[in-house]
Order: sequence, then C-alpha cells, then structure tokens
Amino acid sequence: MAISTRLTERLGIAHPILSAPMALAAGGKLAAAVSNAGGLGFIGGGYGDGDWIAEQFRAAGNASVGCGFITWSMAKQPQLLAAALEHKPKALFLSFGDPTPYVAQIHAAAVLAIQQVQTVHDAHIAIDAGCDIIVAQGAEAGGHGEKRATMTLVPEVADLIARRAPTTLLCAAGGIADGRGLAAALMLGADGAVVGSRFWATPEALVHTNLHAAAVAATGDDTVRQSVTDIVRGWDWPERFNIRVVRNAYVNAWLGREGDLRAGVEPERARYAEAAVAGDATTVAAIAGEAAGLIHAIEPAAVIVQRLVAEAEALLAGGWRRTGGEHASR
Amino acid sequence: MAISTRLTERLGIAHPILSAPMALAAGGKLAAAVSNAGGLGFIGGGYGDGDWIAEQFRAAGNASVGCGFITWSMAKQPQLLAAALEHKPKALFLSFGDPTPYVAQIHAAAVLAIQQVQTVHDAHIAIDAGCDIIVAQGAEAGGHGEKRATMTLVPEVADLIARRAPTTLLCAAGGIADGRGLAAALMLGADGAVVGSRFWATPEALVHTNLHAAAVAATGDDTVRQSVTDIVRGWDWPERFNIRVVRNAYVNAWLGREGDLRAGVEPERARYAEAAVAGDATTVAAIAGEAAGLIHAIEPAAVIVQRLVAEAEALLAGGWRRTGGEHASR
Repeated sequence: MAISTRLTERLGIAHPILSAPMALAAGGKLAAAVSNAGGLGFIGGGYGDGDWIAEQFRAAGNASVGCGFITWSMAKQPQLLAAALEHKPKALFLSFGDPTPYVAQIHAAAVLAIQQVQTVHDAHIAIDAGCDIIVAQGAEAGGHGEKRATMTLVPEVADLIARRAPTTLLCAAGGIADGRGLAAALMLGADGAVVGSRFWATPEALVHTNLHAAAVAATGDDTVRQSVTDIVRGWDWPERFNIRVVRNAYVNAWLGREGDLRAGVEPERARYAEAAVAGDATTVAAIAGEAAGLIHAIEPAAVIVQRLVAEAEALLAGGWRRTGGEHASR
Repeated sequence: MAISTRLTERLGIAHPILSAPMALAAGGKLAAAVSNAGGLGFIGGGYGDGDWIAEQFRAAGNASVGCGFITWSMAKQPQLLAAALEHKPKALFLSFGDPTPYVAQIHAAAVLAIQQVQTVHDAHIAIDAGCDIIVAQGAEAGGHGEKRATMTLVPEVADLIARRAPTTLLCAAGGIADGRGLAAALMLGADGAVVGSRFWATPEALVHTNLHAAAVAATGDDTVRQSVTDIVRGWDWPERFNIRVVRNAYVNAWLGREGDLRAGVEPERARYAEAAVAGDATTVAAIAGEAAGLIHAIEPAAVIVQRLVAEAEALLAGGWRRTGGEHASR
C-alpha cells in the first residue's frame, strides 16, 4: 500500500510529503535526503544570499529538489528568483507576501508555483495569482507564521479551492510531525503535508546540536510565537507575522519588552550573533513548532519520511480504531 | 458502518461526539437533542446559577445528558457541583481550573469525570487527579481557551496518556465542525470529539438569531482571541485564558485598549447588557471559533450529528482519496 494523492501524481513522487524551505536550516543536503526518500525536499532560499543558494543546489547533487523564498525579502533582490529558476527546481515555494508578481516568471520556466498562506483571505489571492499548489499553514508551525490553526484553515481553504479552482492542489502545514498528523491532514482535505520542525530535527539540517537538544527536550507548551528573535537578528518582518521558537532564557527575558530591545538592539545583535556561532542555546532560540513535543530524537530525514508514511498508512488502513494507547512504545 | 471507539463503548452512546458545555448557550434543549441523536449532550453550568441549571435539567426531559462547569467559578459556590450531581448526569465536565478537589465527589456519585485541558502540563494534573476522560482543547476553539493547537495537543496528550494512564480516554476539542474534523481527531489519537461552535449554531442553542447570522457570515479569519468580551461582562477570568469570538465593531474598538475599558467599565457594562437583550451584534460578540468559516447555516443538532458521522464514515472508508474537490457541493 502507498499513499497516492493528487500531489504525488502531479509531482511524480512516491509520498505526499514536502519538507519546508526553512531559511538557513534547509540546505541542499536535507532537500536531497527528503527527495531521495520519496518526498520532495526544498532548499530554504530565505532572506536571499545568491552564493549560498547556488552552493545548496550543488550540495543537492542530482536529486530533484525545490526552492523556497520569503517573498517580502526576495522582492528586494528579485534576481534571486531568476537565479533559482535556472537550477530547474521541481517547484518554487513562496511564503509571506503576495505571489502575484512572480507566478508568470515561475511558469515561464516550466516550474510549479507553490504559495503558502496563513489566512483564507490570502488563499483567495493565491488562487487569483494562478498558483498550482496552496499550502495552508497553521500557527502551530515552527518559524514564521500567523494566527489561524491547521485544523480549521485546511478544510476552509479546501472548500474555497473546490469552489474557485478545483484543480489547484492543497497541502497542510503546521504541527505535522508524525503519521498521525499526515493522516489527519489528508482527512481535513489536503493532498499532502509540508513538514518543517520534524525535518529541522535531522542531522541533515543546518542546525547546531545544542539547538537540536533544546527542541528534543521541549514539550509543545514550551514554544511561543514572538518577535524577539527577529528584532535581535535585524530582520524587518511585516508586523502580521511572528516566529514560533522554543522558549529559552533570552526569549523569556525580552518577551513583552520588545520596544526596549529595539531601542538598544546594536549590542544585543552582536551578542546574539556570537551566541549563534557558539551554539549557546540559552540565547539563540531553537526554531521549532508545537510539534517539538512530538520529537524525541534527531534522526535521518529518510527515517522520518519512512516512518511518517508507515504510521499514516497503518492509520488509514483502520489503525485509528486502536486509539489512545497505540503510541505507547514510541 | 458506525464509528465505534473506546468512548462510545464507555459511555454507551452511538457516536463519538460530545457537545461542549457552552456557558449560557448550551441549555437542556440542545443537550437533549445531541443525546437523542446518539452523541452525548452537555448543559453548560457556566458561571453557576443553580436555578438556571435545574431548569435546564428539566428542559432536557428524559434524555441522558451531562453537565459542565467553569472550575474557577464553580469553586466559589461548590454546592452547585453537588446539586448538579443530584440530577445524575452521565458525566461531569470541568474546564479552566484544577479538577483535583472535585474528582472524588464526582466518582462518589458514580459519575464520570471529564477534564478539559489546554496544555500538556494540565494533562499531567488531570491524570494525577484520576479523571476518566481528558479533553485536549486547541486555541482555534470558540469561547474560552488558551494557546496550543488541536493538531499538536491531541497527539502529545495521547502519548502522555499512553505512557501514564492508558485506560484514560481522550477527546479532541477546537476547530471540529464537520466530518473532516472528526476523522482528523480520530487519526490524531482521540477517542472522540467535543464540538462547540457547530452546536452553538443550532436552533436549540440559547443564542440570539442576530449572533447566529454574524457567525454564519464570518470566515475563520474573522475570529479573534481577546478579553474585551470578559472585561465588559464583568467576568474575572484568570489571565491565561481568553475568549475567541467573531470580531465586531465593539471588539475592534476596544482591542488593544483593554486597560481603558477596565477603567471605565461601569457604563459599558450596562450598555453591553442592553445590547445582549436587543441582539445588537455590532456590540455583543458571537462566541464562535475559527470553525465559523465551516458553518454556513443554522441547522438542528440532530442534522449536525448525522452529518458529522456520515462525512467521517465516508472519509474513514477511503473517501479521503478524493481530496480537494469533494466538498464543492456544500
């Protein structure tokens, strides 16, 4: 048995699993590992460093991978989009901004356009723009996001797509870290899942081992949506988006005092950058979502893909009937 | 085919669907309608008016129903718990406070103890207290709640229960308004679902038609977690809990100015109370969750129960394979 959906058919992949193009963490090695395991892996183009992106495409080798951008940041140097398209990614994944100016260029390169949305309002814009795949991202996700929850946003966007653009595909993102989440996403009306934190917690991700350890130790209760992490890094994010991280001493110290941090950010920025190099997890926050509570070990991406599929297959075959106790042995 | 779970077996009901004990909205008529349709309906004991609760048990007639309380409020007049137990409810549903002081009394009356939790931390407390059923409630829920999302809280609490108290049952709450949500809840590890907003939007609920209309018109984007509604009503909620409502002019006007509202609340309170009687939906907020975007009509509770089950059954039987377009005709 395999989980075949419109997404696996359209992308020509074995499993309906995409890795999130996590800025700075999702390089070519992770993307290739996910693609080689039967999903589709994404390089996180993030804030846009052309040399880094080229290097990550090289690191992906012969694997067919995708590339993602933070739209409002990429818009400041749109040549990065053209450069990424020259690498013939399987799909171009945009999030956090209006995709309308870029879809024609992506399609002209014969590449699929994926738009991640955080609201129903933005799903309308993605449909108007002609995107091929919409990703409905809930606030439980790690990293940047907004307010809506996966549980309601996915079916609401599914209904919208059914009404307005029935051939557009839909993926769920936010809180999906095991086969239960994947199976739930399919029930909610998604054609597949975008998985972030669970792939962040792999040896292939570009993440310091101390930050990995912090996420493994955390429950979902220990994560928080906040802006301290962006202010201190100097990223000028639109106000509607904030970033979910695992709480640590630094976040706890500045949470609710964001104005003070902004006012005295220069020395803090240097201190934070040094801590990032040193892997000081009391200062630098692990960028993981509520799914941190479902992650208990750092494991290879291929193991994650296989387990997600095996667990979801078992549930879809009727395994949900033994609910409640079945995950005891994890 | 029927959806049989540990919950339906333990409660002796046909369908794994509980209606939320929504304060002021969930009276005996709604509770009885849900129970008579094969779920288990709950009277919302809410802030605690003994005469009202007795009246609602009479309104439920011969139907076997449950009763719920807001724990921190019930704690101020604990005789209400004893009074409710005299009505022989099928289960006693507590939320928003420590259940530990009350479980022995509930069990002594041969009644099942249900504890709704918003965090993994509180799930530990519910297990320690010996509760029979834990409800994991996500922030997408309407009415009072906290921060965690259903998509991650349910599987994380499922793992905790499997480890610490495998015979304890688990229900999912928050964002479940159709069969997709019910099927997803079962995949996530729940034995059943607690449904609020979708039952709030029935003729049996004690809700003004103007507020019903506001919720039907809303998308999930239009809802917000806030405290304006509690401040103006004079409910002294613990700070960690706030209340999701459909945004209206009044909420928009005071959001972010809660201190000002508190300082001048007396005239506002009178104005709000008058608006509630008049059904002025620009002032009084409809207490519905993100699932408002999945609710398109006010329909009888029995219709809702049957549709939830039929849709979930179809998905569990493999209907998820036709994802994306299948809800076009709703």
